[in-house]
Amino acid sequence: MNQDWFNPPRTFAGVQSSIQDARILVLPVPYDSTTSYKTGARDGPQAIIDASINMELFDHELRREPADAGIHTRPEVAPVMSGPQAMVDRLGQIAAELVRPPVMLSEAKHLEGARGGNPPDKILCTLGGEHLLSVALAWAYADRYPGLTVLQFDAHADMREEYAETGYNHACTARRILERSPVVQVGIRSLSRDEWDFLQTGPPVTTFWAEQLPLSEADLDRLVDALSGHVYLTFDLDAFDPGVVSGVGTPEPGGLTWSEALRILRRVTRDRRVVGFDLMEYCPAEGNTAGAFTAAKLAYKLMGYCTEE
Amino acid sequence: MNQDWFNPPRTFAGVQSSIQDARILVLPVPYDSTTSYKTGARDGPQAIIDASINMELFDHELRREPADAGIHTRPEVAPVMSGPQAMVDRLGQIAAELVRPPVMLSEAKHLEGARGGNPPDKILCTLGGEHLLSVALAWAYADRYPGLTVLQFDAHADMREEYAETGYNHACTARRILERSPVVQVGIRSLSRDEWDFLQTGPPVTTFWAEQLPLSEADLDRLVDALSGHVYLTFDLDAFDPGVVSGVGTPEPGGLTWSEALRILRRVTRDRRVVGFDLMEYCPAEGNTAGAFTAAKLAYKLMGYCTEE
Amino acid sequence: MNQDWFNPPRTFAGVQSSIQDARILVLPVPYDSTTSYKTGARDGPQAIIDASINMELFDHELRREPADAGIHTRPEVAPVMSGPQAMVDRLGQIAAELVRPPVMLSEAKHLEGARGGNPPDKILCTLGGEHLLSVALAWAYADRYPGLTVLQFDAHADMREEYAETGYNHACTARRILERSPVVQVGIRSLSRDEWDFLQTGPPVTTFWAEQLPLSEADLDRLVDALSGHVYLTFDLDAFDPGVVSGVGTPEPGGLTWSEALRILRRVTRDRRVVGFDLMEYCPAEGNTAGAFTAAKLAYKLMGYCTEE
Amino acid sequence: MNQDWFNPPRTFAGVQSSIQDARILVLPVPYDSTTSYKTGARDGPQAIIDASINMELFDHELRREPADAGIHTRPEVAPVMSGPQAMVDRLGQIAAELVRPPVMLSEAKHLEGARGGNPPDKILCTLGGEHLLSVALAWAYADRYPGLTVLQFDAHADMREEYAETGYNHACTARRILERSPVVQVGIRSLSRDEWDFLQTGPPVTTFWAEQLPLSEADLDRLVDALSGHVYLTFDLDAFDPGVVSGVGTPEPGGLTWSEALRILRRVTRDRRVVGFDLMEYCPAEGNTAGAFTAAKLAYKLMGYCTEE
Amino acid sequence: MNQDWFNPPRTFAGVQSSIQDARILVLPVPYDSTTSYKTGARDGPQAIIDASINMELFDHELRREPADAGIHTRPEVAPVMSGPQAMVDRLGQIAAELVRPPVMLSEAKHLEGARGGNPPDKILCTLGGEHLLSVALAWAYADRYPGLTVLQFDAHADMREEYAETGYNHACTARRILERSPVVQVGIRSLSRDEWDFLQTGPPVTTFWAEQLPLSEADLDRLVDALSGHVYLTFDLDAFDPGVVSGVGTPEPGGLTWSEALRILRRVTRDRRVVGFDLMEYCPAEGNTAGAFTAAKLAYKLMGYCTEE
Amino acid sequence: MNQDWFNPPRTFAGVQSSIQDARILVLPVPYDSTTSYKTGARDGPQAIIDASINMELFDHELRREPADAGIHTRPEVAPVMSGPQAMVDRLGQIAAELVRPPVMLSEAKHLEGARGGNPPDKILCTLGGEHLLSVALAWAYADRYPGLTVLQFDAHADMREEYAETGYNHACTARRILERSPVVQVGIRSLSRDEWDFLQTGPPVTTFWAEQLPLSEADLDRLVDALSGHVYLTFDLDAFDPGVVSGVGTPEPGGLTWSEALRILRRVTRDRRVVGFDLMEYCPAEGNTAGAFTAAKLAYKLMGYCTEE
Repeated sequence: MNQDWFNPPRTFAGVQSSIQDARILVLPVPYDSTTSYKTGARDGPQAIIDASINMELFDHELRREPADAGIHTRPEVAPVMSGPQAMVDRLGQIAAELVRPPVMLSEAKHLEGARGGNPPDKILCTLGGEHLLSVALAWAYADRYPGLTVLQFDAHADMREEYAETGYNHACTARRILERSPVVQVGIRSLSRDEWDFLQTGPPVTTFWAEQLPLSEADLDRLVDALSGHVYLTFDLDAFDPGVVSGVGTPEPGGLTWSEALRILRRVTRDRRVVGFDLMEYCPAEGNTAGAFTAAKLAYKLMGYCTEE
Repeated sequence: MNQDWFNPPRTFAGVQSSIQDARILVLPVPYDSTTSYKTGARDGPQAIIDASINMELFDHELRREPADAGIHTRPEVAPVMSGPQAMVDRLGQIAAELVRPPVMLSEAKHLEGARGGNPPDKILCTLGGEHLLSVALAWAYADRYPGLTVLQFDAHADMREEYAETGYNHACTARRILERSPVVQVGIRSLSRDEWDFLQTGPPVTTFWAEQLPLSEADLDRLVDALSGHVYLTFDLDAFDPGVVSGVGTPEPGGLTWSEALRILRRVTRDRRVVGFDLMEYCPAEGNTAGAFTAAKLAYKLMGYCTEE
Repeated sequence: MNQDWFNPPRTFAGVQSSIQDARILVLPVPYDSTTSYKTGARDGPQAIIDASINMELFDHELRREPADAGIHTRPEVAPVMSGPQAMVDRLGQIAAELVRPPVMLSEAKHLEGARGGNPPDKILCTLGGEHLLSVALAWAYADRYPGLTVLQFDAHADMREEYAETGYNHACTARRILERSPVVQVGIRSLSRDEWDFLQTGPPVTTFWAEQLPLSEADLDRLVDALSGHVYLTFDLDAFDPGVVSGVGTPEPGGLTWSEALRILRRVTRDRRVVGFDLMEYCPAEGNTAGAFTAAKLAYKLMGYCTEE
Repeated sequence: MNQDWFNPPRTFAGVQSSIQDARILVLPVPYDSTTSYKTGARDGPQAIIDASINMELFDHELRREPADAGIHTRPEVAPVMSGPQAMVDRLGQIAAELVRPPVMLSEAKHLEGARGGNPPDKILCTLGGEHLLSVALAWAYADRYPGLTVLQFDAHADMREEYAETGYNHACTARRILERSPVVQVGIRSLSRDEWDFLQTGPPVTTFWAEQLPLSEADLDRLVDALSGHVYLTFDLDAFDPGVVSGVGTPEPGGLTWSEALRILRRVTRDRRVVGFDLMEYCPAEGNTAGAFTAAKLAYKLMGYCTEE
Repeated sequence: MNQDWFNPPRTFAGVQSSIQDARILVLPVPYDSTTSYKTGARDGPQAIIDASINMELFDHELRREPADAGIHTRPEVAPVMSGPQAMVDRLGQIAAELVRPPVMLSEAKHLEGARGGNPPDKILCTLGGEHLLSVALAWAYADRYPGLTVLQFDAHADMREEYAETGYNHACTARRILERSPVVQVGIRSLSRDEWDFLQTGPPVTTFWAEQLPLSEADLDRLVDALSGHVYLTFDLDAFDPGVVSGVGTPEPGGLTWSEALRILRRVTRDRRVVGFDLMEYCPAEGNTAGAFTAAKLAYKLMGYCTEE
Repeated sequence: MNQDWFNPPRTFAGVQSSIQDARILVLPVPYDSTTSYKTGARDGPQAIIDASINMELFDHELRREPADAGIHTRPEVAPVMSGPQAMVDRLGQIAAELVRPPVMLSEAKHLEGARGGNPPDKILCTLGGEHLLSVALAWAYADRYPGLTVLQFDAHADMREEYAETGYNHACTARRILERSPVVQVGIRSLSRDEWDFLQTGPPVTTFWAEQLPLSEADLDRLVDALSGHVYLTFDLDAFDPGVVSGVGTPEPGGLTWSEALRILRRVTRDRRVVGFDLMEYCPAEGNTAGAFTAAKLAYKLMGYCTEE
């Protein structure tokens, strides 16, 4: 039957390379059990993927189609409902396998021969879901890339030790990540007194407040200097101003514009190696369709930036 | 990687038999270009499939899982935008191939050997999209099953000769179908004077008005008698009362209840062979989530009824 | 320019007779200042008219097009914001003029000659807006038709003497109407102790509770007997079950079905003369599109019933 | 300051007796972490309470104001996010204290003197939130009332042993309750094969299927016979037909009407003592405002029925 | 019972000081009877309060928790429905009592002793509701603080003499206020010819047009110079650009950004004493959740700025 | 009857000059059959007109009421459903007649006498509907004004040769226009590789990318230089940033601000003659009410700019 008669599949950007050939793996995680204000981030991954299907594949800034690097969308990760710690454990296992899948060793050898070297790691692009999930991802990446730094775009510091009687809560995301990697934060404009006091104790955190936006050139240099060679990027979509993405669980006025976000990401990906990233907390029911489109485009811009030679 | 860690795929009922093994093919058609009142039926197929994933596979009325007959969901049919006639032509070609796919002749032979006979035709379950699409399906089925009757559940007679300057319009669906097959209509409660006058001229149409609901036993007998051995069923979801499915393009008060619809369908599938069916005009933006769930359940009940021995 | 190239106007049913030729005047009143729970009934008239444009003009129960009697839609009545009493006064003046317009006396004479008698009064179909507006209409009709009875379909008794520091409140509608006409109520299922106590004092009110639905034949006879020769009908759409019309300001479970409402109205219009009617409290933001369509269809059914010879 | 100048408080029915004087305690629990299809039941309790404020206090069926028995609304129970088992434990503790609060022993004595006997237990009316919460409540009541039966209104059997890797999931509610009390189910129309097979093994469960609705008098007798003297009632709002309450997480066509639900509950409360009840799974984002109003009215009808002498 | 087990109350920021100890009183006024375009501002106060509960109490700009000054949320003011003038009168009485409550004179004396002076007036933070309400508030403040200036943030001049047959209309807000105090306006971008002509006659109004945004330093100086020592601030949320707060009754493109609003308010509160303020016209149904959060944050920033020593 | 008692009609800005006296004709075209992502632009024209009714008529930038030039709103153009090419043909005929209506020749002569010259052409302001419609309009204007240039505001290049099996598709708009007129594009930020390659071949297209915004003075000069004396302006509302207008079928982050759009349009209308314009792709269901208001205001600003002497 003529394949032109059918729509592209419901995968990111409407393309689907084989898992072997794909440089980029998209991992949808429809989980939002610990959110405190507005729920619905579980519907985020599918909304972003649906929006991405109508997106142009060509990036006129890069003058190429980033999809040529190969994108493979995995099935959604099934929620584990026995508690958030179990969910983080499960996602950690999945991420570890995907970043360097053991089942692919034989093909890897074959590729090695063909290309004269090790096959490159996959770049994992995780679509959330609530921000807690990034703990699993950042930890898996910290295991794979010793010395990794985590770059966090966020409206909230997420530096709570515990919240709602668990340390595995979206409000504790950066605090948990910090247990294994230094953190650089951008766009922060909301935190508790305890979090403020904690930041005064000198943990390995560099914070760029929303009030510093747009970043001066000096700030941008400082930001890059604070990052190590390998960077895992976690992007809570509430880092954006609500005028850019309104559909998030806990919106905060005064955030990043689209062009400022791209400016920072362009610089970071030019000077450092971003080995994986996630886009979290998109909550379709709370905002308009434009937010899903913006999230999809951000993911695709990052796919392009991360695969520039 | 452990497959239990991932959600079922985004296919009808969350299952996916191979196309060879499936007795039932689900065909989503996200097309709604000729609708006149409220648009959005193009989003119907995916909404119904999304709802179906959370549905139980067990049918306690039939005491079995209808999915055991094998269900395979095709990719969405891509809209042809040059005009509705071209879209009907395209869908007709696709339906003809799916009902008895020529590419499967060799496997067919193989199966014949194994089972000692011809492999059965597929039962096509099309999810719309606007009602015009049923013209393509009814025509394809009329070609395959000479003498076929079409059973139409609908609030509207759809007997217009032309509308909005074309005969290929959702308001003309039954009139076009009638060019090749007799039509039996259930639930009708809205039509123009021209359609009324046309029905007085004695075309091969049997109409059961909404005012006759619930059908008496005598009416139900008359309905079955008006059907031939092979029946194609086209179900415009506005046949239901808006209290049952509110999300349709042109709602009409006073329609079918859920139990009355099942009662009629149970009888028809018991006494006649329903060789294919479609569910049309579900329009998620106009109603609540419950409508998608009801449509999914209706499709699944029909899959069960049509595969009873 | 070819008029077929343009849509019908945004008037009820998409038709527009001249005011002289029209038997029925549609009066939209987008006013909802005293509502207590959910606001938005001010958007009801336009939503009902928009829905009506896609409605078929043919009524297969009556086997004719009720629009042939002539329907003329007036511009929306501008809200008076100085207080609800002023608004009631204003609407009363407008209604009085429309029911028997003095400016039309000369044409009236001319028509008299042609038809050999007085031209008939207009049937005013008012689309609300909040239920308080019906006070103005019922009073205007009571002035024009001495001995008039008011038939109220409603979920609420609306028999409060005062509410929110005014007697001109939607919760006092029937109490105000009662000052000039006896009231027959259908579908009531919510009232305060004070209203209950008031009803025990024996005012000229006949109440048919929702628990009596569907009405027995004896009840239906009693209902008709309680009405005088001329009847003004006020239909608060919350009389319907929320499964029939969900978009109302104060929904109540357990109301009228569509077929029961038509059954009662068919009988009333057969045995009594309904000289005007209103449909109130449709609140598009609180429900689905189907409700607007149902309201439009109810208005049109009534136009048909009221113009049967 | 004049208290008439201010609105009633945001408590159930807009009233607030002291906790000592109240016969009925309303407990809102905004928790929905294990839902599988549509989330948002956490917003249910507040939506129901907001709707209840505009409800009339008078019940014309009972000819009294059930609020006279004293209603006290507690603050919302804070979600425990470390996992569903911890949440069930917490809610169980709270419920145990509320049903017979130890801190009130001294007042109890005082009241004993005054009334010549033990003060009556509180009737707990819990507003969810997801159905899993009912496990905590049914267990707490089973401890308090040995021999208690649980009466479950539901579309789903909820008889799974485990789901999403935990036995503390909304899909396992009745199975967990069954560990301590016999269960009588009404309105069931969806279950898995495993649940069906489990029901065939003869557990202490009596099931009335949706297909049996409306219940015959014989069935109603059988239902009452299956209940012991003390009954805890758990009402998953998806037991209703979606035309009655559309805003639930997992709607199923073919459910209870409003009048049928009241008919069964009137009979049960007349012949047995309902010592507590919950209304669960109301999900405002998925349906219309009418659903919140219907849920509020159901709670209030139950408060009336349970306090009839 | 353990108070940690329960959520914070539904009061602003989830805190509740006693009325005596609170420096700031929050007064919700759910009234919107004179709005002309989109209704629903009556739901604004509760939406803002609900959003505020999830807000962090710490303000990292001020490095303290403004809530430490004491915040007490009053019950909602009950709407008076007999007309807008009556409502303005009522709110005026309430505001006068709250700003300097006579019932508190004895405690005041006690506090005087303790602090060696008069207890400070309460800062009233009113949440609307329609803008007309600000007339009552500005008048009450003008009585209390002779020589007061009113600072108005708004998209519309609100300088009409009368509208919809009353001078007590949201479109006349500033014109009424002007009868007792000079007005300084910021963000104006919409007015009628009559309002324009009125402004040319030299009333005590200083207007900063939207086209002047962001204000130059000179303009900012001019703005402060136009204010007297005591300032009442009325903030119609449509002063913001719709990209910042989209949920308002009459949106206008080209308004204030979040950072520009804070910049002006920081300067004004530094150089003048803002003795009370209101946030009006937030209309949840017309926009996204982010708007409620932005309004809540603006209120809290103002509470912080107004209590800086 | 007193006309003051009624609301303004549902025409643009609530005014209605006669077609003879109007300098500006508003043409609503509710058609969106070829849209690929989100449908609903057919509801755009009415939403924009509804919003416009509440808009002030005075423009304080121009210090006059642009409505004084005469605005006449035509009935909606009826969709032709036989295919998009037929719809373009029909709209082309209508536009040709409206721009210089032959039926008005006699009045024209009369006016000539009165004013001593030719009556000026009408300025057609078309409200869409999908962008494909602009092909018909640009072609009609190219026939009327030889040498015309088309100025396109858009997020997408719309330079596809064909899409969804037709060249008459919203994605091909500019490519079709280009067959008869040079095109100047502003705000472009999304295109396919084929469109990029086509632009490299040197067609008569001048593109200003979104990344160039806000335009430098030099760019603005270049833009004006690229335009001929007569300009037809087609404004796809997705040219705006989604923070300005979120309700469009295919939103793209990073677009025009309100003030930048006005700055460019002010300059263009000052230096060139804009003879007609359209505003397309407003899709109310996808965004908030503010978008409709912004579109209405943009149309009115353009009416003002285009009628400046």
